[in-house]
Amino acid sequence: MKKVNQAVAEGILFTDMYQLTMAHLYFRMGWHERPAQFDHFFRSYPDYGAHKAGYCINAGLEWLLDWMQEARFGEEEINFLRQQTGQGGRRLFADDFLHWLREYGHMHNLSLWAIPEGRVVHPNIPLTVVQGPIALAQILETPLLNLLNYPTLIATRAARISQAGRGQLLLEFGMRRGQERGVNAGARAALIGGADFTSNTGISHVLGYPPKGTHAHSMVQFFLALGYSELDAFQAYADVYPDDCLLLVDTINTLESGLPNAIKLFEKLRRQGYRPIGVRLDSGDLAYLSVRAAAMLNQAGFADTSIVLSNQLDEMTILQILAQIQEEAPRYNLDADEVIARLVYGVGTNLITSAGDGALDGVYKLVSTQDEGGVWRPAIKLSENPVKTPNPGSKQVWRVYDERGLATADLLALTDEDPRLVSPLYLHHPAEPGITRTLAAAEITSIEPLLQPVLEAGRLVYSLPTLEMIREQRRADLARLDSGVRRLLNPHIYHVSLTPKLWQLKQDLITVYRQKGKS
Amino acid sequence: MKKVNQAVAEGILFTDMYQLTMAHLYFRMGWHERPAQFDHFFRSYPDYGAHKAGYCINAGLEWLLDWMQEARFGEEEINFLRQQTGQGGRRLFADDFLHWLREYGHMHNLSLWAIPEGRVVHPNIPLTVVQGPIALAQILETPLLNLLNYPTLIATRAARISQAGRGQLLLEFGMRRGQERGVNAGARAALIGGADFTSNTGISHVLGYPPKGTHAHSMVQFFLALGYSELDAFQAYADVYPDDCLLLVDTINTLESGLPNAIKLFEKLRRQGYRPIGVRLDSGDLAYLSVRAAAMLNQAGFADTSIVLSNQLDEMTILQILAQIQEEAPRYNLDADEVIARLVYGVGTNLITSAGDGALDGVYKLVSTQDEGGVWRPAIKLSENPVKTPNPGSKQVWRVYDERGLATADLLALTDEDPRLVSPLYLHHPAEPGITRTLAAAEITSIEPLLQPVLEAGRLVYSLPTLEMIREQRRADLARLDSGVRRLLNPHIYHVSLTPKLWQLKQDLITVYRQKGKS
Repeated sequence: MKKVNQAVAEGILFTDMYQLTMAHLYFRMGWHERPAQFDHFFRSYPDYGAHKAGYCINAGLEWLLDWMQEARFGEEEINFLRQQTGQGGRRLFADDFLHWLREYGHMHNLSLWAIPEGRVVHPNIPLTVVQGPIALAQILETPLLNLLNYPTLIATRAARISQAGRGQLLLEFGMRRGQERGVNAGARAALIGGADFTSNTGISHVLGYPPKGTHAHSMVQFFLALGYSELDAFQAYADVYPDDCLLLVDTINTLESGLPNAIKLFEKLRRQGYRPIGVRLDSGDLAYLSVRAAAMLNQAGFADTSIVLSNQLDEMTILQILAQIQEEAPRYNLDADEVIARLVYGVGTNLITSAGDGALDGVYKLVSTQDEGGVWRPAIKLSENPVKTPNPGSKQVWRVYDERGLATADLLALTDEDPRLVSPLYLHHPAEPGITRTLAAAEITSIEPLLQPVLEAGRLVYSLPTLEMIREQRRADLARLDSGVRRLLNPHIYHVSLTPKLWQLKQDLITVYRQKGKS
Repeated sequence: MKKVNQAVAEGILFTDMYQLTMAHLYFRMGWHERPAQFDHFFRSYPDYGAHKAGYCINAGLEWLLDWMQEARFGEEEINFLRQQTGQGGRRLFADDFLHWLREYGHMHNLSLWAIPEGRVVHPNIPLTVVQGPIALAQILETPLLNLLNYPTLIATRAARISQAGRGQLLLEFGMRRGQERGVNAGARAALIGGADFTSNTGISHVLGYPPKGTHAHSMVQFFLALGYSELDAFQAYADVYPDDCLLLVDTINTLESGLPNAIKLFEKLRRQGYRPIGVRLDSGDLAYLSVRAAAMLNQAGFADTSIVLSNQLDEMTILQILAQIQEEAPRYNLDADEVIARLVYGVGTNLITSAGDGALDGVYKLVSTQDEGGVWRPAIKLSENPVKTPNPGSKQVWRVYDERGLATADLLALTDEDPRLVSPLYLHHPAEPGITRTLAAAEITSIEPLLQPVLEAGRLVYSLPTLEMIREQRRADLARLDSGVRRLLNPHIYHVSLTPKLWQLKQDLITVYRQKGKS
């Protein structure tokens, strides 16, 4: 796409058409500036088929704020809308509405609360709350979901993969297989969730991290095509990068050619006073080859080198590789934990696309609106499935920590409630009537509000954390999560509960709305 | 991301770090301007788990050319690379290399051949061929794969979904669930492959198509929250869009509330001289509800209205819905085909993310390189799996049409071969020795070269087709595909073959390279 077109495609028109037809309708009703409140939340954890997440890592807020700051209706956007016609050939959007859009069509007057990036989050808790003129809050729905759903999906996957790899260095390698320019958001989210670095050079620059990468098969191949050998290719690499010699050893044959050649080269580097970095394995049985590589490298006195694994890795593959190494290593008189401690993971496709579940089901639902008298009225969307009926009204999310200091539940409360002042604390099941868990004061070490004010009528009232602070937050939150909830397979289900008052409001509204539908 | 950062992240640094470390190495060897040739191809059709594609629709070329035209190393990019240091704290990139990059670091001297967008394509045939200075062709690898893999994945999925829906109107609705800004490329690819329109407003504007969309549940909900009814919401919608009245009928209850209210409204519109468009169903049993909606609408005299279906559709769901309608319709004295002929499909997540297989495995392999004397030397990358060993040398792809006028095979030939001059035609199996299919002249109606010259040393020698021409190409190609290959489940495997000469070259190279590895 040409840059001039990209600016238009990613500006204020980066939204679904129905947001604009609805905004126009609200304008016609005289309601377009009526304050309304929307909750953004996801309904279920990513489910990768054979396995399922037990938590998510929130991500995407900063870039959403960037979009909100820059997007606005200019002449080009207005002209485009002016040209849209319906079935009868008549214009869809009237001039008075377009004039209003030209004047007020931006996100600079909206208020926003959000759970910070890097925090552990769960289904059905509001991650982002938007308040403002309904016409604009409605236009924001699509870009908000677009800019938040995918990063949270990927940060979550990165956390899981990092966990499977026992916190060893994790590199994001997926740029060539993700969804076009979306890979930049994916790389940032991976860095938030658990990747240490990315091979994506541009986004590394923007975020202030060094990009990672050494060489591909094509380099060795190029030497071969010119009549040289794999060893010549390795030698050339070592000459240029003597401090950073990490060699890809599977272009010809890992055990018979790549590793012996790498070791020859490493010996030469050692004689020259350099410390070789290690080898990368990109094909074959990575567990078996890791063990064999470790044995060969140890024997040559390179026990401190890394073994980088890549090729279709994800959390389950890594778990399986580690289990196999535990089994195989003793056969080669190796300590399995030592082999594992020198592994580095390069993860591409499965991380950047969240293979198995490529979308987070984040939604944006009207929860409250002001009536003519300026009084806020909670709203609800009925669903035959009670779990899918959103929680109405203006809410805060409270995280309750148990006597171990671990998060035991997220409690949704109306904003005029403060669970820190209530004892014992009643946690109502989100969908089943009459099921309540009671927590006595002694069972609670702390209760923390998660939603932070971010924008007050467009003014930034939030200090944006650095990426490093976001990562620190993620580590801290994961450390306070029960290990059962962190489990990669069949995780323990974390409690998301309602206060009795919110539960009652929801039931009352359901009754009223059911009657409205019937009348 | 702020716009100023986005420009950097999507410019020439939109590549993997190892492309730059390798380019630097080639520079150090004095080889950086050595001409090399790379083939881009994918190895296997998307496999969605329960089902698998039997063809792909090529897409993405135009936006790749846009990127190649705009990307180049400026001061910011050079400064970033200058700051990169290795393990020893020394700089990774030397000044002479950076000076060269600053001067020549752009894609304006590369040559490129490509199969046009919208064409049916198959595994292991070069879709794009890049020729030029190896350092630059190497840097291009990542952006090329990024800009082509995803569009081809999505165009393919759109073709399948359109096929399942028997060519009924198909709308792309996935913007909120795709990978951030990549959704724009996804929407364009969907339009190429089989979607008629998209809800994505910005990209519709850029591509010159009207965006599609009417209203969401939130509109009805907003009316309810203010004390009004669903019928009031419908009435307001009809007042603003009397020519385009398409109503979402499942906010409260489809059969008991939404449809009766919509019909009331439609009757009113009819009295006013307008023709209502139809209803949208977004939850519940869409097959059953389609039949019930058709019956109710017919009874009220609205047999010419559309029924738009949305909610987690993909090709298999649509097939299932149609089968169920065939079964259910007669029970309501309806002609199933008439019900099906009024359906419109709105497909979101499953299309934009290609659910089930979220990445095309497109790769970019060195196939030839010039030696010191300027002679092209074919190159190969060995693999233990013979199917994964790329086909060496400079090639053309020929599509062979059988006596029915249908495509029967794609034949890879060296560029100095012309299969149109050969009879009978021998098609060698791509991996199994000694397996050859013979086609007599009488069995062939035409043979067509697929790769077109696009860039000659950076100069555009290709007339870019409009999106409408690309869609026409897709329709023509699909019509010339055997229906067994088009089958949605267990498709017949299309033949991709080698000429005997190319087969022999490949075997010879494998032998030579095996020996090199051993020596």
